[in-house]
Amino acid sequence: MTGQRSDARRNYSRILAVAEAEVARHGAAASLEQVARTAGVGSATVRRHFPTRQALLEAVFQERIQALCERADQLSRAEDGRAALLEWLHDLVRYAVSARGLADALTYEPPTDDPAPHSCGTAIEDAATPLLRRALRDEVVRPGVTFHDLITLAVGIALATEHHAEPAIQADRLFTLTVEGLSPSPSPSPSPSPDRSLSP
Amino acid sequence: MTGQRSDARRNYSRILAVAEAEVARHGAAASLEQVARTAGVGSATVRRHFPTRQALLEAVFQERIQALCERADQLSRAEDGRAALLEWLHDLVRYAVSARGLADALTYEPPTDDPAPHSCGTAIEDAATPLLRRALRDEVVRPGVTFHDLITLAVGIALATEHHAEPAIQADRLFTLTVEGLSPSPSPSPSPSPDRSLSP
Repeated sequence: MTGQRSDARRNYSRILAVAEAEVARHGAAASLEQVARTAGVGSATVRRHFPTRQALLEAVFQERIQALCERADQLSRAEDGRAALLEWLHDLVRYAVSARGLADALTYEPPTDDPAPHSCGTAIEDAATPLLRRALRDEVVRPGVTFHDLITLAVGIALATEHHAEPAIQADRLFTLTVEGLSPSPSPSPSPSPDRSLSP
Repeated sequence: MTGQRSDARRNYSRILAVAEAEVARHGAAASLEQVARTAGVGSATVRRHFPTRQALLEAVFQERIQALCERADQLSRAEDGRAALLEWLHDLVRYAVSARGLADALTYEPPTDDPAPHSCGTAIEDAATPLLRRALRDEVVRPGVTFHDLITLAVGIALATEHHAEPAIQADRLFTLTVEGLSPSPSPSPSPSPDRSLSP
């Protein structure tokens, strides 16, 4: 039994190392069959460790995701709630732009019969939700904004700029544009007010 | 010569019809080899008519792109410059969300040695630029915003919501969020002012 378990651990490490290299080369579209071939294991073995492509992507990006969670934790003690949320979101956008495939890992929605409900996506949500709640309470973010909106926004910026000549620069432009608004409604009140909230 | 030319026309029509079906099924990632096989022609014939994947995508989406150009033309005579630009942009987002692959066709950047500089992308830019210029002149859109920003924004919203359960609804949320701003800077002036412009 112990021998079998350490074999499995070795397989897991080898598959993960190969997957990291494949995802760096091909992004989220990396071939799972190619990962199995290069790691010298069968496709069934890859699937036993990583039942879905997203599970594999999450494992590949676990370190970056962990760093985002720690950053959220640090920023939750910052003085300015608006700056804290925006700084975290900017970090998320930069990570998603720099790491091919991270955008796809972030949109991972576990199947309802997933045996492991605590995915890294959930970890990010748990870490960032206090920042968003505080910003909503302080009325420094548009009312009705959800964690899901923030993730989709960051993913959109990363995917739209992926094939640009200078993705990081264009991503920063879009980030500023989205934070400040392309064309905010004329209104006597300079701060977001309930009548300009997002309908759910 | 006439026979050869009408053969070429028939080939072109058949390839385009097959390509439309393939792009509807697989989006922008549709296989050009599969298009050639289904159309019963060689890959070289497909490439002669459509030198790049983007050229094929543009041909597939030509009708929608034409409709967007006509809409821009109509809206250029509207009374409210801000509403006109935003209505056109919303149309663009809706098209991009509903048609798999249109987002990729829109980001088509012709190679510098392209023999046909007047691509559909250029047609859209020509049609929409008067709307953007007017909105910039009226100071109802953030200073420094470019046509390229608008396209990248629409493409990002379409790509980020592609795998959502209800893409159209989430795309509308993101559109509103981006127009109004996630968290506009606190400022005494309610309308966009030069100090909040995008750096180029």
